[in-house]
Amino acid sequence: MSARIIDGKAVAARVRAQVATEVAEFTAQRGGTPPGLATILVGDDAASAVYVGGKQKACAEVGIRGFDHRLPADTSREDLLALVEQLNADPEVSGVLCQLPLPGHLDGVEITNAISAAKDVDGLTIASAGRLALGMPGLRPCTPSGVIELLAEAGTELQGAECVVIGRSNLFGKPMAQLLLQHNATVTICHSRTKDLAATCRGADVLIAAVGVAHLVKGDWVKPGAVVVDVGMNRLDGKLTGDVDFAAASEVASAITPVPGGVGPTTIAFLLRNTLEAARAQAGVA
Amino acid sequence: MSARIIDGKAVAARVRAQVATEVAEFTAQRGGTPPGLATILVGDDAASAVYVGGKQKACAEVGIRGFDHRLPADTSREDLLALVEQLNADPEVSGVLCQLPLPGHLDGVEITNAISAAKDVDGLTIASAGRLALGMPGLRPCTPSGVIELLAEAGTELQGAECVVIGRSNLFGKPMAQLLLQHNATVTICHSRTKDLAATCRGADVLIAAVGVAHLVKGDWVKPGAVVVDVGMNRLDGKLTGDVDFAAASEVASAITPVPGGVGPTTIAFLLRNTLEAARAQAGVA
Ligand SMILES: NC(=O)c1ccc[n+]([C@@H]2O[C@H](COP(=O)([O-])OP(=O)(O)OC[C@H]3O[C@@H](n4cnc5c(N)ncnc54)[C@H](O)[C@@H]3O)[C@@H](O)[C@H]2O)c1
Ligand SMILES: NC(=O)c1ccc[n+]([C@@H]2O[C@H](COP(=O)([O-])OP(=O)(O)OC[C@H]3O[C@@H](n4cnc5c(N)ncnc54)[C@H](O)[C@@H]3O)[C@@H](O)[C@H]2O)c1
Repeated sequence: MSARIIDGKAVAARVRAQVATEVAEFTAQRGGTPPGLATILVGDDAASAVYVGGKQKACAEVGIRGFDHRLPADTSREDLLALVEQLNADPEVSGVLCQLPLPGHLDGVEITNAISAAKDVDGLTIASAGRLALGMPGLRPCTPSGVIELLAEAGTELQGAECVVIGRSNLFGKPMAQLLLQHNATVTICHSRTKDLAATCRGADVLIAAVGVAHLVKGDWVKPGAVVVDVGMNRLDGKLTGDVDFAAASEVASAITPVPGGVGPTTIAFLLRNTLEAARAQAGVA
Repeated sequence: MSARIIDGKAVAARVRAQVATEVAEFTAQRGGTPPGLATILVGDDAASAVYVGGKQKACAEVGIRGFDHRLPADTSREDLLALVEQLNADPEVSGVLCQLPLPGHLDGVEITNAISAAKDVDGLTIASAGRLALGMPGLRPCTPSGVIELLAEAGTELQGAECVVIGRSNLFGKPMAQLLLQHNATVTICHSRTKDLAATCRGADVLIAAVGVAHLVKGDWVKPGAVVVDVGMNRLDGKLTGDVDFAAASEVASAITPVPGGVGPTTIAFLLRNTLEAARAQAGVA
């Protein structure tokens, strides 16, 4: 079998186009005031600057107003918290995110949790994690939301499916498991202490890898006909590559996401969607 | 094989005795002010009254001061929220719980979430669920904490163990899965939409059932040597019985909790422990 390639770029483009349409409607209804996304970048880490730049550019493309806050590396905790408070209170700002990692003297968890739940478009605060865990409405982390969209695109039936998630980070693995559970999948979470990872993976109808180890998942870990989602982003011989041995796995799977061009592009698309949803909730629109 | 019976009454008694000792120390250090647990009961549901009475009695036995609030069934939302606020602000009250279910005109989720995170000794608020999901310190739901204690008592190695939880309630199944994950188990959550429950259970080193269907789990669903924890409380032919076919499962398992006398007694023990932990945190004691 040769797996169908799930085209993350196309899915992301579709989501972004849909968000753009809805943003235009929202903005018209609100007398010209668009949703707004405030990003905070502290210091001048090159990779972080690229990420933040990409988010701001994506906002502009769908009609979301960007508020691009760049602070020096020696910004004090108090000044940073004051900025978050100001953005929490600003009615033109629908969503707030603080790019991680922060310089060592600042606590990323503390700063993230200063963002009000209503504006937590990364879905990483205690309140958002709690609402997800309890099955209550709320803003969900972007990358797991993107994976759900990719699975929908691939026509994957999640109800009753055996889903295996490798990786248990707060950013991805744990919220991914919660979202799959909400879609009525039977969910197994694996991690670095899992004893027989290969055997567990072989039971998966849907196998999702988010580890950060290039080609950890071998072709013979994949059940014939399974859907494979590769979240990993690793540099191998100067090339971006995933956690899955794509060549081997795509011989066995029914559908698979490539790296690059799979999960990656969907993350920003769902950041935009979250910003629109936050704006709607703040405006009291359903 | 005939399984070892995990004695929940003995475990609960040990935890309660330990809490009593620590409460006495805490109270002495605090100039005679003990930890306090406020319970709220609205209406006169007989079962709820029994539960609340049991909690208050258990407090008295370990030296925790009880505040036993009983309100008429037609109590308004505003009055109930005002009581919760008053208890949140009362320095003699370390923990607050509102016995569920509430009469139909009141929203149990709303009232529960009015309890401050610091006093949420049932561990059921958004903030507590979020802290658990993110692996941050916080108050954990009592029944899953009791199960962890029972597993420790049975000498069960959780790291790398394949743990299967049947049931995904906010009260038990979901927080149970999170606690097992924190103990480095590989965790699978099953529920009513799981396709081949028997097969999934057969892979479990630790099998935890919290469904509410008498004898759902058959003997041949249990892997030889597995540890079985039965959270279910069902009435069958006038007798309290669990979710596991105890007679058959105990032929196969290495250890098993009975019903009654297994998980049940540990829940109140961990409510007392949570109340002490909340009091310590509020007093700034480690
Ligand atoms: N937008 C995106 O595409 C996106 C978003 C998030 C993460 N990622 C990528 O996903 C990967 C994981 O990132 P993260 O932040 O979720 O995870 P992380 O780095 O915080 O944690 C890695 C997880 O993998 C597990 N793990 C490590 N070694 C393992 C092994 N040998 N076997 C099984 N499990 C093992 C660990 O237990 C841990 O839970 C990275 O490559 C990251 O770049 C991509
Ligand atoms: N202190 C204690 O001992 C204690 C505490 C909590 C719950 N319980 C008992 O545990 C049981 C579950 O209670 P709860 O509040 O966690 O759950 P619940 O009643 O809220 O939910 C039951 C769960 O079981 C699942 N389920 C239902 N039928 C199923 C089936 N045929 N196969 C697989 N899964 C199925 C559902 O998906 C659901 O997640 C009850 O018997 C309850 O009395 C005991």
